[in-house]
Amino acid sequence: MPEKETKGERTRRRILEAARQEFGRQGYERATIRGIAAAAECDKSSVIKYFGTKQQLFREAVDWQASFDAAELRVDDRQGEEYLRAMLADFAGPRNDPMFALLRSAMTNEEAAQLLREKTTTGAVDPLAEAMEGPDARLRAALLSAVMFGIAVQREMLRMPYLADADLEDVLRLSGPMLRRLLEPRPAQDPDATP
Amino acid sequence: MPEKETKGERTRRRILEAARQEFGRQGYERATIRGIAAAAECDKSSVIKYFGTKQQLFREAVDWQASFDAAELRVDDRQGEEYLRAMLADFAGPRNDPMFALLRSAMTNEEAAQLLREKTTTGAVDPLAEAMEGPDARLRAALLSAVMFGIAVQREMLRMPYLADADLEDVLRLSGPMLRRLLEPRPAQDPDATP
Repeated sequence: MPEKETKGERTRRRILEAARQEFGRQGYERATIRGIAAAAECDKSSVIKYFGTKQQLFREAVDWQASFDAAELRVDDRQGEEYLRAMLADFAGPRNDPMFALLRSAMTNEEAAQLLREKTTTGAVDPLAEAMEGPDARLRAALLSAVMFGIAVQREMLRMPYLADADLEDVLRLSGPMLRRLLEPRPAQDPDATP
Repeated sequence: MPEKETKGERTRRRILEAARQEFGRQGYERATIRGIAAAAECDKSSVIKYFGTKQQLFREAVDWQASFDAAELRVDDRQGEEYLRAMLADFAGPRNDPMFALLRSAMTNEEAAQLLREKTTTGAVDPLAEAMEGPDARLRAALLSAVMFGIAVQREMLRMPYLADADLEDVLRLSGPMLRRLLEPRPAQDPDATP
């Protein structure tokens, strides 16, 4: 805990952590200010004082940053695997991860879905498309994001058989060539192309 | 409407359709017997008479079949694209699709998640792994399922930018080589392998 954290800052941080947990566990609609206050061991009025409405608290709680630095994006042979490794690590982390909360809520709430669309596009898909060469860069970047989302959700969130129990390195080894296909489609020399 | 459908059968069918819609829209937890009865334009007691509990109604409502016939599975050059085409068509269909309802509920409800795991594994991943050659067939089949799920959910359910608006044929053209990589990894002659 940072030395300079005041009582107010501590309460604020505890509320945000509790909010991520509750939104992540129950989704936006079912999570309540009352439940979040209880999880943060503070009064309901403190939540309202620091964050206003449930909607405002939600927006702040799920304000996640992509785990890669857009300025350092490279598109090379190992890059797909590295993105996937980072994303799986995010998803495998504590269940109060902001992305986890946003994702779970986005499935049943349109406002959360809109927030997910904005964050994914500006934080990941657009920078990735910028760094990619060749045609269809934006659609390829969006597909790459969708594919990694599918693997991360099914492994860490839905815990699908085989995938959830597989060794991480096996998942990355088998996914790597597939992700590379999207990063560098090389249509002119595609060895899989039908003659 | 089939000619022989009795009044009871019609009510039953209407309740199932309404249940898929409500579970798909709201997820398992938030959908209510009362709301489903209202959507089916019948009495709450009819729902209970035909299906018992909300849990039993849910199990029946989401009893979806994979859109491919496991006995006809082939693993060839076009197969990945054909699976994805079928899955996207399912997701793009009416919002009372059983898979849609199951998926949305599975994100926030463990019982729905368990049902999704069972159905996906026995209905799609296991038959696909049987039809695949080479090592890691079950993990590759699970990855294929996760990848298609990611594309389908982000395109049809979350309506992600670029992906939602893209032409279906472009999505399939760019996804095909990637899916083929999982269906036929050919590690011995992998042209992408680092030397």
